[in-house]
Amino acid sequence: MTTHVRIVGAGLIGTSLGIALSGKGFRVSLDDPSPTAVRLARDLRAGEIAAADTDAPDVVVVAAPPDVAADVVVAALERWPDAVVTDVASVKESVLHSVLDSGVDPSRYVGSHPMAGRERSGTAAARADLFEGRAWVIVPHETSTQAAVAALREIALAVGSLVLVMPAHEHDEAVAAVSHVPQLAASIVAACLRDLPESAVGLAGPGLRDVTRIAASDPRLWTQILAGNAPAVRAVMRLVRDQVDDVVNALDALVDADGAGALGTLSRVLEAGNLGRARIPGKHGAPPAAYEVVSVVVPDEPGALARLLGDVGEAGINLEDLHLEHGLGQAVGVAELSVVPASVEPLHTELARLGWRVHD
Amino acid sequence: MTTHVRIVGAGLIGTSLGIALSGKGFRVSLDDPSPTAVRLARDLRAGEIAAADTDAPDVVVVAAPPDVAADVVVAALERWPDAVVTDVASVKESVLHSVLDSGVDPSRYVGSHPMAGRERSGTAAARADLFEGRAWVIVPHETSTQAAVAALREIALAVGSLVLVMPAHEHDEAVAAVSHVPQLAASIVAACLRDLPESAVGLAGPGLRDVTRIAASDPRLWTQILAGNAPAVRAVMRLVRDQVDDVVNALDALVDADGAGALGTLSRVLEAGNLGRARIPGKHGAPPAAYEVVSVVVPDEPGALARLLGDVGEAGINLEDLHLEHGLGQAVGVAELSVVPASVEPLHTELARLGWRVHD
Repeated sequence: MTTHVRIVGAGLIGTSLGIALSGKGFRVSLDDPSPTAVRLARDLRAGEIAAADTDAPDVVVVAAPPDVAADVVVAALERWPDAVVTDVASVKESVLHSVLDSGVDPSRYVGSHPMAGRERSGTAAARADLFEGRAWVIVPHETSTQAAVAALREIALAVGSLVLVMPAHEHDEAVAAVSHVPQLAASIVAACLRDLPESAVGLAGPGLRDVTRIAASDPRLWTQILAGNAPAVRAVMRLVRDQVDDVVNALDALVDADGAGALGTLSRVLEAGNLGRARIPGKHGAPPAAYEVVSVVVPDEPGALARLLGDVGEAGINLEDLHLEHGLGQAVGVAELSVVPASVEPLHTELARLGWRVHD
Repeated sequence: MTTHVRIVGAGLIGTSLGIALSGKGFRVSLDDPSPTAVRLARDLRAGEIAAADTDAPDVVVVAAPPDVAADVVVAALERWPDAVVTDVASVKESVLHSVLDSGVDPSRYVGSHPMAGRERSGTAAARADLFEGRAWVIVPHETSTQAAVAALREIALAVGSLVLVMPAHEHDEAVAAVSHVPQLAASIVAACLRDLPESAVGLAGPGLRDVTRIAASDPRLWTQILAGNAPAVRAVMRLVRDQVDDVVNALDALVDADGAGALGTLSRVLEAGNLGRARIPGKHGAPPAAYEVVSVVVPDEPGALARLLGDVGEAGINLEDLHLEHGLGQAVGVAELSVVPASVEPLHTELARLGWRVHD
């Protein structure tokens, strides 16, 4: 039997999911308060427009904005008495509590959080491959049935996600630290640039660009996310505040007094950062790999980078990562090629032989 | 007449500068308390080993650790009564004050800060192209001679840097905001990951990786830098602290009270981040360009990325930037190609024609 998935909410996530599931042979029906959105989603091959209430789905995926997700979940549980219902909001505990408080039988509800998104939102931004290779967190609660969890897992695997299962509070605490607080930190650092003189922002380098990249995110969406996860975000922000206070006090001691203990404090914060950074897994969910970087000078002209990577490919060497570092005010860049340590020597030799300026 | 540059300190910066200047026809002599370092630097073609005191240099570049830079500058001014003397420490006002306080005639001293570095340090990490395309800030003071500034400018331009001139306090305030505080923020965010359960760090995505990349930097060096720029770093860290306090108070209001005003506060912080982020110049020191991103699905196998970029090059389109986004747990990645808006349509069409899965 073909599984029938009803998607409520034809934005970026809902439409992308519809396209991906339709491509895998699922039957998808689409529901959205906006007739325009749902028609565009259909035209993008995300599924058919949802029909009468008699056309019961096996699974309902609520891809509505976070602040209405719980109400839509409860309505779906009531409307489809046999369907598994999930939502995709990026904060899980508040949705779960609302569902439990509603009085509806919650056993067919399982929360989920596909860790996928884009800097753009809306139906038109949908991508069939949005979930490929991303984590999809399934968040069962005490009375969730095994069948409900299994149905969600089938959907997540069908769209190419890696399934992780954890309780709601654990999920919310995790994303507070790995996503919500980093967002706030990036915004706060970027905000300090707002009133700088032009000559000062001219000194910006790649470090600042990396730290502040996500500061360009949508404030409206992020306000909802942060408010929805306030307790967990607060706990981590308090850790941030304590460290910021320690640093400011150390700087005070250096400026206004004899600086006793200040260097130790600064050093401890920086060392703790080393340790925390080392815990972030590498690509493909693997533990942080000891890749090595080979730097190659690349003229900033059409085809130069392609020629370099063509040479890398012909040498039979797999790039683990690639970072382009552009110079300031001149037509040359540095391509940093990350490879496994065993590839450094052959890569260097081969590229140098072909005339590239190589450093490792 | 060939300019004779004496470099004091054969670490990453000194040795790289020696290699670059030697390659441009300057005569370079090398001085370092470590005979091993100076011999290695010579073997890397950074210059000759410095000889007798009678061999007077035209310019002395002090590339010693920041905490001894001022003393070495003063010694050089006394030892070589006709030489222009500079240092390359990343904090300028404290070095300048020490030089002025020493009683030596400071007119031949000009501070400088080549904005170049690597995640590795030491003689062996030296690169001829370390300064290519980077900003080199020249920091004259009230009595610096024009000739001294001109000599420095000649050196900076010779190694391919873009010269900026600004007073010491302006430099120090700028780097506090664009470099020192971002370093602290990255370290503090990363430090919050230290005690997370394994399942939580497994949810880390590209945003977190970017925010915390520089948290891997050397704590010893950075403690010196932060302490050396304590007043300016403190001023920016106070702005950070105020925003962190605002956010924690807003979260308190949401958790413990009715949340009045909390959403407005969160939204304001995020919007300020948007504005600050928008001020960071793009590559080549140009104003932030409105590049657009074309995303292409790339199988994670040798040659695939090269083939893609070969196709981009053959389409005659110049990549402004490239970001590889790797999936979690599967063998496919997404290459995000930044191009000028006018190139989006032809690039998309051409790549799709060649069978690539393209999104923009």
